[in-house]
Amino acid sequence: MSLHAEMLAVGQASLEASRRLAVLGSRRKNAILEAMAEAVETSRKAIAEANAGDVQAARAAGMAPALVDRLTLTDKRIDAMIAGIREVAALKDPVGHKISRWIRPNGLEIVKRRVPIGVIAIIYESRPNVTADTAALCIKTSNAVILRGGKEAINSNRAIADAMAEGGRKGGLPENAIQLIRTTDREAVRELVRLDGIVDMVIPRGGESLIRAVVENATVPVLKHYKGICATYVDESADVEMALRIVENAKCQRPGTCNATETLLVHEAAAKEFLPRMAAALMARGVELRGDAAARAVVADMKAATDRDWDTEFLDMVLAVGVVPSLEAAIAHINRHGSHHSDAIITESENAARRFCAEIDSAAVYVNASTRFTDGGEFGMGAEIGISTDKLHARGPMGLEELTTYKYVVTGNGQVRT
Amino acid sequence: MSLHAEMLAVGQASLEASRRLAVLGSRRKNAILEAMAEAVETSRKAIAEANAGDVQAARAAGMAPALVDRLTLTDKRIDAMIAGIREVAALKDPVGHKISRWIRPNGLEIVKRRVPIGVIAIIYESRPNVTADTAALCIKTSNAVILRGGKEAINSNRAIADAMAEGGRKGGLPENAIQLIRTTDREAVRELVRLDGIVDMVIPRGGESLIRAVVENATVPVLKHYKGICATYVDESADVEMALRIVENAKCQRPGTCNATETLLVHEAAAKEFLPRMAAALMARGVELRGDAAARAVVADMKAATDRDWDTEFLDMVLAVGVVPSLEAAIAHINRHGSHHSDAIITESENAARRFCAEIDSAAVYVNASTRFTDGGEFGMGAEIGISTDKLHARGPMGLEELTTYKYVVTGNGQVRT
Repeated sequence: MSLHAEMLAVGQASLEASRRLAVLGSRRKNAILEAMAEAVETSRKAIAEANAGDVQAARAAGMAPALVDRLTLTDKRIDAMIAGIREVAALKDPVGHKISRWIRPNGLEIVKRRVPIGVIAIIYESRPNVTADTAALCIKTSNAVILRGGKEAINSNRAIADAMAEGGRKGGLPENAIQLIRTTDREAVRELVRLDGIVDMVIPRGGESLIRAVVENATVPVLKHYKGICATYVDESADVEMALRIVENAKCQRPGTCNATETLLVHEAAAKEFLPRMAAALMARGVELRGDAAARAVVADMKAATDRDWDTEFLDMVLAVGVVPSLEAAIAHINRHGSHHSDAIITESENAARRFCAEIDSAAVYVNASTRFTDGGEFGMGAEIGISTDKLHARGPMGLEELTTYKYVVTGNGQVRT
Repeated sequence: MSLHAEMLAVGQASLEASRRLAVLGSRRKNAILEAMAEAVETSRKAIAEANAGDVQAARAAGMAPALVDRLTLTDKRIDAMIAGIREVAALKDPVGHKISRWIRPNGLEIVKRRVPIGVIAIIYESRPNVTADTAALCIKTSNAVILRGGKEAINSNRAIADAMAEGGRKGGLPENAIQLIRTTDREAVRELVRLDGIVDMVIPRGGESLIRAVVENATVPVLKHYKGICATYVDESADVEMALRIVENAKCQRPGTCNATETLLVHEAAAKEFLPRMAAALMARGVELRGDAAARAVVADMKAATDRDWDTEFLDMVLAVGVVPSLEAAIAHINRHGSHHSDAIITESENAARRFCAEIDSAAVYVNASTRFTDGGEFGMGAEIGISTDKLHARGPMGLEELTTYKYVVTGNGQVRT
């Protein structure tokens, strides 16, 4: 069978499964999720062994320690995976929800009802817990899911998917509702993302080159979870103590995440007071500061920022620091260099806050809070499948609702159009 | 300048304009729309002359009369175009609307607010009134729009776009908020749909090959307005008089539209009573019936349907007719052969209606009403930019709301993540 025929068969099996999933009730789906959690529990030894094989191979191939860490499934991480499935089961099911309802003058009743999307393909790298998380979120929302993990985690992913499918079967999950692509052939992704009419959505999660490859090849709609070049702007009216606390948190609390602040902009009127204290605090935490000329005129022991620094997602203890003459200049900088993910203003001026929030074209805009809050859990969504940097369908943290679409159910008593 | 550089410049100018549009208030936008309507009124002679040129060239090139008719701007159609702009001005502006608001336990206030998408490219064929309609809808929702009409309407489109831009200028519309691609080079579309990061959404409106070409080439998210292979299913419990009325309307009221019924499925228990009456009524209207063997066993003077007929959007007085043994068979047929646009069941059984609506995977599902109602106006949206056959972002009729996205505005008083 050609790779094309193979992926087509996978897609069609998912499509079949999605029809059966669409009519499952919440109680049945929750029972299935519980059976899946139990099956992962029962298979934890097999999962750990498969993962040990992946980790060993990755080390032998010289994978960077940070990536090996992401790949590794400790006992605690397997526990978290199991708990995660149960947490998804406990969430409210958005499927079937009546979004709105109205009656037309001719008597037609129109109900806009939330329904599953259908078939979702997730293409991801490295962390094998994504396999369990995304499968649980998709099943909860009655979507069939096709999982394509990274080569480096293939054995871990297989073991997890096998356990979940086995548990699902016991709970009454339709066959092929969860499918893992078992070949590591890169061309499989290309085939998968061209199954429009069968696969309804592709979510690539990973590095820039993975996302770019999916976007270039896809004919299926793509929802991107792209990089986060987030900025915090300290306005002239900022409360300096608050600004120090927020900037330190936004940069240091977990620098490897997409919602960590990578760029600090300071109004020139605040620079003299704020920058030296900020530099002392961040340098004490081990942050490397890269400043523009105006910032370095205030704090001499910063490295000079290069042009590229403003467009870079450091994912590390590095911060680009710029001094701007005005709110407008800060807004223009962020809209131009940022990735439209999460940006904050620290200000005591209501007017500046309003303008910042209106003019910054990002998924989340913050007033006097850390950019680190952009997260499904922190937003109260209960779980997230990622953070969309797209503007269509879903923007920002994607929870269960964002894994659904809607249909119009129109009921009449013989109405015809005239 | 290369075509790539040219399209990039167009995109960047739109992006600039979108920033300025985003902060315009509703009153200002309505004044701009009124100025645009007035300018089209003032330029009606120039528009009519430009259109006459297009029509003459089309006739000379042997364009089919139906297409020449679509291309032609009569006085009445220009009136309708002007009235259309004013109708859009009168609609409620969705931008800025608070979709939801909640407070997190840490005191953060999260507001999910409706905002413009940004830059929208519309690629369309033939009917020049689309230029005015879509420009008005985009401006109303604070989106910059790039219009790319068909070669056959280029002079009409230029005249309309020039008038609207001129009127817009007088009303205070930011420069380049409406841009028409003036080259007829086909490669321009290819460049345009690859401007991801600048253009936020592409809407192709037209034939299958146009849409396919956009989907194949695009890296920008695409919202498709695809074909409509709509079905009406007459259940065994159907009220026959109602079924006759609805089927005739769904097929004949305007057969060239995407929501006209192309396939009629009849439960075998209803076939003997219903089919002869239906055939007599439709044949009297000039409809060509193409039946499967079971249908032709009841009504002998139908043509035999070919396999292709079930997958064809006739857009004409042609109807494929099949007899099915059950509701399940009707559902399976529609999900397999339909285009997930609009499908109806005629039934007196609540249970059959519920199953049909739950299991048919289409944008609009109807109980005892004509599929012809899938339309922004008929749904009460006031205006539509098209009908999405996609599942992401917007499904079914797209009105003003569907031309917006949202952002999260998060306000705190110094919150940091722990």
